Amino acid sequence: MAVTLGELAVRLGCELQGDPATVVDSVATLANAHPRAISFLANPRYRAQLTDTRAAAVIVDARAAAGCPVAALIAANPYATFARIAQILYPRRAETPGIHPSAVIDPTARIDPSAHIAPLAVIGARASVAARAVVGPHCVVGEDSSIGADTVLVARVTLCAGVKLGERDIMHPGVVLGSDGFGFAADRGAFIKVPQVGAVRIGNDVEIGSNTTIDRGAIEDTVIGDGVKLDNQIQIGHAVRIGAHTAIAGCTGISGSTQIGARCQIGGAVAINGHLTIADDVYISGASSITHSITTPGVYSSCIPAEDMRTWRKLVARFKRLGAVWERLAALERATGVSGHEEQGEEDE
Amino acid sequence: MAVTLGELAVRLGCELQGDPATVVDSVATLANAHPRAISFLANPRYRAQLTDTRAAAVIVDARAAAGCPVAALIAANPYATFARIAQILYPRRAETPGIHPSAVIDPTARIDPSAHIAPLAVIGARASVAARAVVGPHCVVGEDSSIGADTVLVARVTLCAGVKLGERDIMHPGVVLGSDGFGFAADRGAFIKVPQVGAVRIGNDVEIGSNTTIDRGAIEDTVIGDGVKLDNQIQIGHAVRIGAHTAIAGCTGISGSTQIGARCQIGGAVAINGHLTIADDVYISGASSITHSITTPGVYSSCIPAEDMRTWRKLVARFKRLGAVWERLAALERATGVSGHEEQGEEDE
Amino acid sequence: MAVTLGELAVRLGCELQGDPATVVDSVATLANAHPRAISFLANPRYRAQLTDTRAAAVIVDARAAAGCPVAALIAANPYATFARIAQILYPRRAETPGIHPSAVIDPTARIDPSAHIAPLAVIGARASVAARAVVGPHCVVGEDSSIGADTVLVARVTLCAGVKLGERDIMHPGVVLGSDGFGFAADRGAFIKVPQVGAVRIGNDVEIGSNTTIDRGAIEDTVIGDGVKLDNQIQIGHAVRIGAHTAIAGCTGISGSTQIGARCQIGGAVAINGHLTIADDVYISGASSITHSITTPGVYSSCIPAEDMRTWRKLVARFKRLGAVWERLAALERATGVSGHEEQGEEDE
Repeated sequence: MAVTLGELAVRLGCELQGDPATVVDSVATLANAHPRAISFLANPRYRAQLTDTRAAAVIVDARAAAGCPVAALIAANPYATFARIAQILYPRRAETPGIHPSAVIDPTARIDPSAHIAPLAVIGARASVAARAVVGPHCVVGEDSSIGADTVLVARVTLCAGVKLGERDIMHPGVVLGSDGFGFAADRGAFIKVPQVGAVRIGNDVEIGSNTTIDRGAIEDTVIGDGVKLDNQIQIGHAVRIGAHTAIAGCTGISGSTQIGARCQIGGAVAINGHLTIADDVYISGASSITHSITTPGVYSSCIPAEDMRTWRKLVARFKRLGAVWERLAALERATGVSGHEEQGEEDE
Repeated sequence: MAVTLGELAVRLGCELQGDPATVVDSVATLANAHPRAISFLANPRYRAQLTDTRAAAVIVDARAAAGCPVAALIAANPYATFARIAQILYPRRAETPGIHPSAVIDPTARIDPSAHIAPLAVIGARASVAARAVVGPHCVVGEDSSIGADTVLVARVTLCAGVKLGERDIMHPGVVLGSDGFGFAADRGAFIKVPQVGAVRIGNDVEIGSNTTIDRGAIEDTVIGDGVKLDNQIQIGHAVRIGAHTAIAGCTGISGSTQIGARCQIGGAVAINGHLTIADDVYISGASSITHSITTPGVYSSCIPAEDMRTWRKLVARFKRLGAVWERLAALERATGVSGHEEQGEEDE
Repeated sequence: MAVTLGELAVRLGCELQGDPATVVDSVATLANAHPRAISFLANPRYRAQLTDTRAAAVIVDARAAAGCPVAALIAANPYATFARIAQILYPRRAETPGIHPSAVIDPTARIDPSAHIAPLAVIGARASVAARAVVGPHCVVGEDSSIGADTVLVARVTLCAGVKLGERDIMHPGVVLGSDGFGFAADRGAFIKVPQVGAVRIGNDVEIGSNTTIDRGAIEDTVIGDGVKLDNQIQIGHAVRIGAHTAIAGCTGISGSTQIGARCQIGGAVAINGHLTIADDVYISGASSITHSITTPGVYSSCIPAEDMRTWRKLVARFKRLGAVWERLAALERATGVSGHEEQGEEDE
């Protein structure tokens, strides 16, 4: 879609430095922009690229505006303004209302006439699909599930029985919501399945990435708050609760019954144990292991950056011989009469 | 389903402390129980919640029975008894026998008349589906695969060619069994695909979680033993063998040709190298890396719990300078004449 | 398929030690071979098994040929020769050309008459499928996507809009290509979606394992080079670029905008941060964390092998008290007048 800079400035409440009649029709990076593209400068490390950009316009903050060699849209939060402009330039296609003849719909399901049901979708008994919702190709909507207004299941999303989605949610391909949690009682060398009778409830404005899985609760529900953003291949165990506006990057796993606060940001490949409580506003760096509850907002990590293999092998060998360090320190302290700082009982910790 | 405590006590062989005519129809946690719910106390840390519970009855062990303010079912293993009672209260729905008209069934496939084939399932040549098995919506059953009696493919499960399932298995959505293993021969800077000609064989009473993948063997089969329970998003490489009644939590990966013993319990996000042997009765904590075979039953770990970022950065910096500790210790030992404990050759390990 | 050793020797340019009329029809391990099987010896640790093998023939290098008790095919790279022979013995079945009547094909899609479109595939507007390509059951080919000649989508593969596949690619079940990247702009406590307008481009001879996900670019494309091999359950973020002939093992995650070089080999369960550059010919061991760019070819790791839990707990306790080591060393050095090697400012790193 093509739009003038003047219209963008008005719609987004930005100051415009340049010709309001200039038309843009696409977004681009500063380095690879072409003359009908709009770009943005949010990260100062890309400032050098501003000088040479061939974009029609750049979204910048007030400090960077003076150095902008082309038209500038001046915004307090250039990246957020860029996101809004990209939404204008690349509007989500409105799917045509109606049910594809190849879809298999239970007669007791309720489908809003404005909803779009794509080829080969399967919708179970008593399920409901609200206004303007999209159920993409190959989706399975289990019985008693409900999909709120304007929610999009892109393709091949599976909702098991009784999953409740909010409004304006986006579910990417391969997402599975409401499969049984991992609940077994050990009994004389074998496992007895514990029926998983809780549901899954998803708030509004939630986006869930490809092949992410969220189990139903064992007894109580698994609950994802409003505005939560989950990346691809995340695993959420039974009865987990995630607070509003928390974002989690790919490949992270959260074990059952853990509660994550609001506005948290959790990196990729993080492993979080079960039955923990993570406070609001906690940041966890990628590849960390969380084995205890976190009660204080802040940044947490247990990620160890890689080294070249020769260096790394020495580090691991020394790490595994740390006991000898304590022994040698103690021997030196005894021999020299210097008093050490060692607390009691370190060997038994 | 509603049932009296008296009937539950008889069916499960429990002692009942309370009115046998009391009816329960659901399960609940101690904290959130309502007057027709049955709850349980298995973990002593929840004992305080017993005092205030409003459940109709609680499943407890003999020691906790005296403190139970409502009816008590007394069991040696309260959690296992809870699992069995939940199975009574929430029976798995019997699917109606027959083949949905939208399913695509190869004429050479053999489907037991009591099996249920859901909408849009695809069943290939010479595949077989045994009595009372359920093939859910959007499942693909590859040619020459077989599904044992009472096994359930919930939805969107893919069996590639020649996959053998046992009886009473449960496969959750997104499971892929029998895809090609990761086998390539390096040859002059490129890779040649090694055909993966082994199969996948799954025992009886196996449950496999959403989006878990199990590759077919390169030459010999990949084999999952009876009673194995696999959580979501687990990756099992080609020709892995897993012994009976082993349980593995989500996001764990096992590389090719590794053999896992019986009755192991492996946490989530564990990485296990290929060509290893893990003994029976091995427990591995979550987020650990297994790079060597384990021959002795026991508990193993390499998980490092996270710290706040400032503390963590100092720890990593010190870890990476461990070499200086050895140097300083040696200098002190030389200067003071205290003999160190350092073995030979530490730098070359 | 059955073939004589003589024919294999001619087709593969190997020296044959044994009877050229001997027929083989399958592959096997040295230990479990039967008299019509061909095996191979590539890893010296299996040399002891050569003596007792009952295979019809073994593929060996020149050094091992003398010790081979049965017929030998002598090759410079026995494993690569084995791969080629297995391809001859187990040819990929040619699918019959044509479109299954249950597939749903947009009228504007272009399907080569020699292509095979399996049951219940969905092919969107303006998509194209080239000669001899296979679109397996339950695949979704999004609008404007293209599939090159001889490429195989095994089953249940999802291509979102505008995904370009190369020739001779193999995509295993559950693969998702071109889902939206994880792009959000934080704005006053909530997130604004950044439209993901880049595409996904896959080279020739690429193989991608089950349930692996590759996001489309935010602005510029996500690009996978020729000959790349990706195992199962890998997550590739938006605008990642992977160089030709790189191989990556299962469960590894690569965050957005990272560039991986050519001919790299990356182990399983590796976590790679975003916006990094990894040089050509870099090897990364499994379960490592990559937080910085790597500019030099070589082998890198941050994997810590597990220990039994009692030993491990002591190691972690000592690791977390490393600060005390520095303090005690400094105290000893002060008391004895031995000068330490400590650099400035270690506490602030």
